[in-house]
Amino acid sequence: MDDLYRHPSYPLLIVISGPSGVGKDTVIGRMKERGLPFHFVVTATTRAPRPGEVNGQDYLFYSAKEFAHLLEKGEFLEAARVYNDYKGIPKQQVRQALASGQDVVLRVDVQGAQTVRRLCPDALLIFLFPASEEDLARRLQERHTESPEGLSLRLATAREEIGRLGEFDYVVPNRDHRLDETVDLILGIIQAEHARVHPRQVTL
Amino acid sequence: MDDLYRHPSYPLLIVISGPSGVGKDTVIGRMKERGLPFHFVVTATTRAPRPGEVNGQDYLFYSAKEFAHLLEKGEFLEAARVYNDYKGIPKQQVRQALASGQDVVLRVDVQGAQTVRRLCPDALLIFLFPASEEDLARRLQERHTESPEGLSLRLATAREEIGRLGEFDYVVPNRDHRLDETVDLILGIIQAEHARVHPRQVTL
Repeated sequence: MDDLYRHPSYPLLIVISGPSGVGKDTVIGRMKERGLPFHFVVTATTRAPRPGEVNGQDYLFYSAKEFAHLLEKGEFLEAARVYNDYKGIPKQQVRQALASGQDVVLRVDVQGAQTVRRLCPDALLIFLFPASEEDLARRLQERHTESPEGLSLRLATAREEIGRLGEFDYVVPNRDHRLDETVDLILGIIQAEHARVHPRQVTL
Repeated sequence: MDDLYRHPSYPLLIVISGPSGVGKDTVIGRMKERGLPFHFVVTATTRAPRPGEVNGQDYLFYSAKEFAHLLEKGEFLEAARVYNDYKGIPKQQVRQALASGQDVVLRVDVQGAQTVRRLCPDALLIFLFPASEEDLARRLQERHTESPEGLSLRLATAREEIGRLGEFDYVVPNRDHRLDETVDLILGIIQAEHARVHPRQVTL
């Protein structure tokens, strides 16, 4: 007799987002360290490589001309200007990974997550939530050499972003000293999503 | 500063269902063995206790009169006749457990799951899926001393029940020799559901 159960294979587009300073890169870094079988999106950027950065691994380094060409063709899932440079998520890379059956993981800021949702309603949006405002402030201070005014502007932005939580699917608290708990919860969510009777079906 | 994140506490009503012979009791038995912090519903029944069965632990043993009284008052979440006896899930027990903040786990057949959904749209319905028809047939044969006709009737029923999968939230394959995988996936689903931005809110 045949197997009754055939699990349909719909790879997920998993967006890790949250306010600036919440630890998105740290979480994704730990997911990579754990050797999870996902495709981690490599962001394209027009900025010059820093010493030690490897093209195709840390970033995809594009010339301004190449980037502009893809942008005009609508070939970025999400793109943003960062000071005088541009960065973006190439659709083609995501398409290829999904076509090979892999779940795709990418990180974007809160505004970027909403762009992804608009282009791809079945994307899975995870909001990393700071444990506390002190935590967020500490991280921002560690990372930036900012004036007190700069810091309070960033905290105000974070509060505004937290107000947009309702547009996400899942909320995952992130605490520095409990990074593996954060990753475990994200894995639980991904596992559960694959067990949904009515799965998300990503098209790009 | 205050914590930014306060996880709202909405306990879940988790329904473990699936065709006869799929192993619902085995799965719930393993969940109990693992000491998980859920309230496992004790079913009420009008049948007489068997040797060794403890009232309030294995079953709630009700007289036919008591059972009829509660049934008339609409105090069963789900009730069914089994040969000449009745069994049912007392709403009050579920209400109390939910009010104490515990997730509630109960097992019902496929038809019963649909009754629970009707009374409680935010219940979380999990469909245990047999690995194969051979698996299902073997289990049914182990449990019942049935004629070949009886067995093919049960298998036909299982097929019909599998056709109602679409009314469930999650589908979890169950294999005897991989019972802990089944339980782990159920736990992942419960954990993910608690991380939903828009949680289920069960009222009874």
